Amino acid sequence: MAHSKEMTRICVIGAGPSGMSMLYHLAKMEGQGKRIPDVVCYEKQPDCGGLWNFDWRTGVDEHGEPIHGSMYRHLWTNGPKECLEFPDYTFDKHFGKAIPSFPNRAVILDYLNGRWNTVNARKFVRGNTKVKNVIYNPDNDDFTVWARDQVDDKDLPPEQFSHIVVATGHFSVPNIPYFKGVETFPGRILHSHDFRDAHEFKGKNLLVIGSSYSAEDISLQCVKFGANNIVCSSRSGPMGFKWPAQIQERPLLERIEGQTVYFQDGTSTEVDAIIFCTGYKHTFSFLPDNLRLKTENTFYLPNLYKGIVWIKTGNNKLMYIGMQNQYYTMTMFDVQSFWACRVILGETTLPEKEVMEVDIARWIHKLERVTSTSQAIDFQTEYVMDLGRESGYEHNLDVKDIFDYWEEMKMESIMTYRDNVFKSKFTGTISCKHDKPFMDALDNSYDDLY
Amino acid sequence: MAHSKEMTRICVIGAGPSGMSMLYHLAKMEGQGKRIPDVVCYEKQPDCGGLWNFDWRTGVDEHGEPIHGSMYRHLWTNGPKECLEFPDYTFDKHFGKAIPSFPNRAVILDYLNGRWNTVNARKFVRGNTKVKNVIYNPDNDDFTVWARDQVDDKDLPPEQFSHIVVATGHFSVPNIPYFKGVETFPGRILHSHDFRDAHEFKGKNLLVIGSSYSAEDISLQCVKFGANNIVCSSRSGPMGFKWPAQIQERPLLERIEGQTVYFQDGTSTEVDAIIFCTGYKHTFSFLPDNLRLKTENTFYLPNLYKGIVWIKTGNNKLMYIGMQNQYYTMTMFDVQSFWACRVILGETTLPEKEVMEVDIARWIHKLERVTSTSQAIDFQTEYVMDLGRESGYEHNLDVKDIFDYWEEMKMESIMTYRDNVFKSKFTGTISCKHDKPFMDALDNSYDDLY
Repeated sequence: MAHSKEMTRICVIGAGPSGMSMLYHLAKMEGQGKRIPDVVCYEKQPDCGGLWNFDWRTGVDEHGEPIHGSMYRHLWTNGPKECLEFPDYTFDKHFGKAIPSFPNRAVILDYLNGRWNTVNARKFVRGNTKVKNVIYNPDNDDFTVWARDQVDDKDLPPEQFSHIVVATGHFSVPNIPYFKGVETFPGRILHSHDFRDAHEFKGKNLLVIGSSYSAEDISLQCVKFGANNIVCSSRSGPMGFKWPAQIQERPLLERIEGQTVYFQDGTSTEVDAIIFCTGYKHTFSFLPDNLRLKTENTFYLPNLYKGIVWIKTGNNKLMYIGMQNQYYTMTMFDVQSFWACRVILGETTLPEKEVMEVDIARWIHKLERVTSTSQAIDFQTEYVMDLGRESGYEHNLDVKDIFDYWEEMKMESIMTYRDNVFKSKFTGTISCKHDKPFMDALDNSYDDLY
Repeated sequence: MAHSKEMTRICVIGAGPSGMSMLYHLAKMEGQGKRIPDVVCYEKQPDCGGLWNFDWRTGVDEHGEPIHGSMYRHLWTNGPKECLEFPDYTFDKHFGKAIPSFPNRAVILDYLNGRWNTVNARKFVRGNTKVKNVIYNPDNDDFTVWARDQVDDKDLPPEQFSHIVVATGHFSVPNIPYFKGVETFPGRILHSHDFRDAHEFKGKNLLVIGSSYSAEDISLQCVKFGANNIVCSSRSGPMGFKWPAQIQERPLLERIEGQTVYFQDGTSTEVDAIIFCTGYKHTFSFLPDNLRLKTENTFYLPNLYKGIVWIKTGNNKLMYIGMQNQYYTMTMFDVQSFWACRVILGETTLPEKEVMEVDIARWIHKLERVTSTSQAIDFQTEYVMDLGRESGYEHNLDVKDIFDYWEEMKMESIMTYRDNVFKSKFTGTISCKHDKPFMDALDNSYDDLY
């Protein structure tokens, strides 16, 4: 492809909620009569939706590529939908009536698709297409992208882009630490990434390692579907919820001998399976070192101005969306994308590199003083609001009070917090109750999308 | 790295039995005072051994790369060791006494390591190093290889090589066909690639899909370790062994509804787990289309002269080792490697491309007439003998009669064939019996390496 210094041509990598928000805003602008650049979105999965697609496969896909999905069959959102609601496409607008605050996965994907479809954002997506490599060409100040059509099993001709937007998520590549003796454990060992359905663990004694969202929710799933007993072990101390009788908390695992697992307090127990809920790694195997974000899962990322613009190549044309640790999800990705679109279209000017570095340092310094969940929510609210203000995002995305109320409910009762109702900030609608409480609802009817 | 037209520099990709045979012969030649070229072997796993390493992990490794290993804890070889014995490094030489004919995995790896260590073949191996990309440079008639140091999480500088030897195996990337309704199955679904230990399936009812080595051996493993019942389903008709009462054969799976699996003959059964023993795919994600072997698992490969030399680039400097379907294993890889070394060192001259094409066509035509196991063994024996003759390999590798006897024993009794003894062609040693018959040996002591 011939190169032009003036060319603006955007490559979005990944068609999950983050990438699709980029495409949504570009398509929306186009629909409003604005001239938009050429856009290509490469997606490894057959269709858009990212983690919200349920994949029965684990390990690698039919082309030998690592499975992206970490979704399990009976997942309900663990935050209220009122915290991820789009002000320009509300749940009322999509469903035409009040629905529960903690819907199952299929409802969320349906909602997302509904918004994307309003502007046909999907038209930019090339599914079943894996990005193999990206390089930055300093002479032309552009990028070359190599991709492979997985269905035709064929390399595509390399393409040139002025801008790269990395939106591949960071809950796909499992972090699985080694524990002494794990290689001798005779039962099933899996990471939450490969967890699909708790039925498998009915009647079993389980060890769950970890103390974050996956640990708490997968433990509950296993209780719901009949696990006999679950011991949760973590480095960072007990989660501290009011667990059902089947769940106990222990300190970090020390070693494994046969089916017996020993903890750092000297206690031990016998288990049938071990589930690693030990989080995920930011991994971008298609990026060379000079373009690659290396980070822990944190609320403010190194080397990204406003958590978005990669400052190390110096041209501000490589961006990342949705790479932070998250309370805000869909709406944060959306305001990030809107902000990024405005930068790419030249409607916002970025400051000098030194100024951006100072700004990043300031946010990271602020984050260092965050010591509670409520403060972390505050921090991310401020971040989201800052992006909204800067980009002229049409709506106020602040749902801090809903998050705080949710957190309170959850600490009060981990088993029933999903049975609460919440009020939409944008429509005032109060959500309705599920037919059954979360812990009793064993057969989510996915076809019954309200 | 500066380029020289005369440079011979070999890149071996993969340090399993195939790649290590390349390194073994080069190191051996060096030890005999021959000047050998510069050699680098990139290996994704921490150490050499390929599939013979047992990996407790499944899915992806700690760096997010697909797990190579398909090894399970209680694997015993399914062919007699007398069929994979190296004439220049016999089992007698390694163990100093007779050992059983069907050793467990650890014994085989120990034996392989023993041979590699005689010449310190491991010195060429860069472990934890993943090849990301290879390109052929027509102007220089050489190759550029990009690799990543997985431990340091760092791209390595690209390196130039005159020759590439692809030895990454073809039993690592699972083939998992879709069956209607599989996405609704509530139990565990796995491919044999992810099978590690049959204990997990104690008391369970299983569906095993497939009719080749994995299906037969994993079914037996599950019986050994207490599965309740196993239904084997396959497209190609029953395996036809004299199964224990817990194993039945059925036609191909037609669809799945909840826990019920329906077969093409209209019968159905309820199962707790589904094990796909549906084979593997030849996959080389690090190779571009113009260098990449695309093939089914067959006894003679397209576009590879002598099953080794890639004829499509025209320079005969890209080779593949061990990519055939296999009766012969270690010794076939060894004579292939020896043959390839002689070509690379200029000790054998290759014919014109047209002659090579005719030769490939002749073998493939011959293969088309193969209709029985015994004929397939004949075919591969002829192939191995041909390579041996051409390269001046020191020993006669023909073990056709042992294979035939083994096949006979196996058809007679799938449960006890591993309890037979065989005689080494090279030492005349008659193997000894295991302490316990295969079906009763539940606690292979891996530390007890004879």
